[in-house]
Amino acid sequence: MATVQPRTLQGFFDYLPEDMVIRSHVRDTWRDVFERFGYGQLETPALEYADILKGKYGEEEKLIYQFKDRGNREVALRYDQTVPLARVIAEHYSKLTFPFKRYEINRVWRADAARKGRKREFYQCDIDIVGTKSLMADVEIIAVLHEGFKALGLKDHVISINNRKIIDGFIATLKIPEEKQREVFRSIDKLDKIGKDGVLEELEKRGISKTAIPKIMNYLKIQESIGLKDNLYKKGTADQEYEQDFKKILKQMEFAEKGKEGVREIEEMLHYADVYGIDRKHFKIDPSLVRGLDYYTGSIFEIRVPSFGLTSLAGGGRYDGLIGMFAGKEIPAVGVGIGFEPICMALQELDLGPKDANTTQVLVTIFSEEYVKESYEMTRFLRKHEIRTELWLDKNTKLGKQFQYADRKSIPYAIVIGPEEKTSGMVVVKNMKTGEQQSIPSKDVLKALESIVIQKKR
Amino acid sequence: MATVQPRTLQGFFDYLPEDMVIRSHVRDTWRDVFERFGYGQLETPALEYADILKGKYGEEEKLIYQFKDRGNREVALRYDQTVPLARVIAEHYSKLTFPFKRYEINRVWRADAARKGRKREFYQCDIDIVGTKSLMADVEIIAVLHEGFKALGLKDHVISINNRKIIDGFIATLKIPEEKQREVFRSIDKLDKIGKDGVLEELEKRGISKTAIPKIMNYLKIQESIGLKDNLYKKGTADQEYEQDFKKILKQMEFAEKGKEGVREIEEMLHYADVYGIDRKHFKIDPSLVRGLDYYTGSIFEIRVPSFGLTSLAGGGRYDGLIGMFAGKEIPAVGVGIGFEPICMALQELDLGPKDANTTQVLVTIFSEEYVKESYEMTRFLRKHEIRTELWLDKNTKLGKQFQYADRKSIPYAIVIGPEEKTSGMVVVKNMKTGEQQSIPSKDVLKALESIVIQKKR
Repeated sequence: MATVQPRTLQGFFDYLPEDMVIRSHVRDTWRDVFERFGYGQLETPALEYADILKGKYGEEEKLIYQFKDRGNREVALRYDQTVPLARVIAEHYSKLTFPFKRYEINRVWRADAARKGRKREFYQCDIDIVGTKSLMADVEIIAVLHEGFKALGLKDHVISINNRKIIDGFIATLKIPEEKQREVFRSIDKLDKIGKDGVLEELEKRGISKTAIPKIMNYLKIQESIGLKDNLYKKGTADQEYEQDFKKILKQMEFAEKGKEGVREIEEMLHYADVYGIDRKHFKIDPSLVRGLDYYTGSIFEIRVPSFGLTSLAGGGRYDGLIGMFAGKEIPAVGVGIGFEPICMALQELDLGPKDANTTQVLVTIFSEEYVKESYEMTRFLRKHEIRTELWLDKNTKLGKQFQYADRKSIPYAIVIGPEEKTSGMVVVKNMKTGEQQSIPSKDVLKALESIVIQKKR
Repeated sequence: MATVQPRTLQGFFDYLPEDMVIRSHVRDTWRDVFERFGYGQLETPALEYADILKGKYGEEEKLIYQFKDRGNREVALRYDQTVPLARVIAEHYSKLTFPFKRYEINRVWRADAARKGRKREFYQCDIDIVGTKSLMADVEIIAVLHEGFKALGLKDHVISINNRKIIDGFIATLKIPEEKQREVFRSIDKLDKIGKDGVLEELEKRGISKTAIPKIMNYLKIQESIGLKDNLYKKGTADQEYEQDFKKILKQMEFAEKGKEGVREIEEMLHYADVYGIDRKHFKIDPSLVRGLDYYTGSIFEIRVPSFGLTSLAGGGRYDGLIGMFAGKEIPAVGVGIGFEPICMALQELDLGPKDANTTQVLVTIFSEEYVKESYEMTRFLRKHEIRTELWLDKNTKLGKQFQYADRKSIPYAIVIGPEEKTSGMVVVKNMKTGEQQSIPSKDVLKALESIVIQKKR
């Protein structure tokens, strides 16, 4: 066999066991929250007929991995989890119960321009409620996010909310041609990235009318008008202050009938958020929040964690026009995409990963052939008590080498049962961090490992 | 947007929440067992450079999904999890600690001939130990299988074992040309499918020598020589009987030096299996077990569950030559592929799926706008106690329709809090199966739902 250079495609990554610890933790945490809220899991194929995906992603369509399969069918790798959801809704309509609440945590593929660290294969983590226009559904999605971020230890999360109807209402007041409206839309969306000056420059370049531009710039200053700097509230802001600010902001957002409707929706959502016990301090009303995707029709929201900077960690909203695209009728829906990869990065950076990594907790060594049985029985005992235990797998290895293995794998404890121990019914427990060894009666081993044992299983 | 027919590619399937219950259960169960044994999780990309996969799968290579990506690179979808493991070992060699024990549960893709129900996308579930020749590793793999099958409720599993050295030793005694040896090999492998007569016919067709054929047919009768019918032991067979049978069979398998070595290995493995407390009754020595893949070099084993018929539910062995293919040196390894999809089918057919499906356990209804808060607080209370609870998401839905939803989703309990209940601090708990309703004090609700509450979380 000719030697082939072992390598991975750019943008594709191996996740070794130590990388998987945080990834599994994030996955399990969300899954747990979703299921506690009664969401069911959905899995759709990695490959779809290409025409299912085409025409759905605008300019980004060129990033789809598409090819002809051996049967000469045009096929494509999943690009997101929303279009496949829409297909599932149409294809299995009669089997589903509505409102249909599903989650999916799975890989998607995008042939994005190569750049260091950019992933062409990554996980998405979505929940959606399909089949109801009730705003209680929008708030439930936010409540799920709130619970999940708390469960991950990202407790200072900020939920920015806005409503597409407000933006539409505002843009209608500009009295500019329809094709220009979309451009305004896209420029506003870039505020976070390019700042107000950047937006201004873009609007001028795009040839937006001289009367419209100042209005747009004023729109972007609504938050500043209440004295909110850097888009963030200070710690310890009083509840009434939020209350008043929200009122002041919302009052400036009632552009035409549509804008008023949007404002009413935000007010109703905030009311339910109160009922649901989500503290006001987590909310921020952000008129400049657009979320690029054209398909939103009502509420839009985004979550950031200030200690992790400006990266959006989840974003979604109501999109009543999209899910019905294959079913041939309007099917209301609200949902959110949770940034699986950025959340993993945030946990790593903020050192919020699981302390109890799901890797080995104890190595039971093999003293020699004659003590395999004793070592194995200790191993079995520990595993029965849900301690993740490895038995050394060779009867002819020096103890030093076995300790070295435990050390390299950061296994916190090693256990030795040799001739002395066998005779006296003792075991030696070695703390691999401190190097400290203690000889204890076998029956007390759980107590000696207490720091492990008391940790809850995932 | 033109209407596109919603459909999935042949061999690709959507898994709806009700399908996912059993699949998640199988996945979680194995993951739990693997981690308790100290195996770490690995994830490799879905796409690899095509040359990484090519030349590794023999004739089956034509089933690889291969295409040119937008950068004109020849890429291919993962075909199994073993070749990528070999790549990972070479690529990350210096970062890994050996023996490297990993599990991977992930999708693979094979453009197999279309046939009803055949999957072109399916999950594989593998564990491997890389970097030791110790037979204790081979036995540990079997011990993991044993634990996993027990945990899944497949308690009557039969572990067939053999050793490639025995087969090699035997085939050497035939004194036939090397290219014919491989054909004999393949014919023996088909015994289960085509029976002895079929094997005989094939050997004749392949032009195996007249002196060799009777020897081969005798080899296939070794088990019969001890009176073993249908390859299975009867229930209640005494331990000594196994002991004697194993001895008798092994004695007939000592073909030349290599065969003797293989027999010694089986004996040593059975010794460790005793130490590990795996009951003899789970084992069967099966000289006709070949396991098609050319790359095995030592122990081979396979698991069946007689109540589910002849389908192999897991199979593996030692393959010391393969893992080093990218590293350019021999790296010993032993591992097993666990049949994720057939195990899901077996659990379904034998009704061994989880009774405690991971779907909603309680629906809290909304009586009307004024009672949203009470209903939400009940919901929050239940979720806090890890009961998977849905809150109805609309304040204007008739109760009957809410019950209908619970019914269609097989949610076992519905809770109602209306004006009467609010005043008196009671809740109505409706058992959706029996239709029985009881009015109880709010504080006793956990007790009323006891049948759910006492169930352990996954």
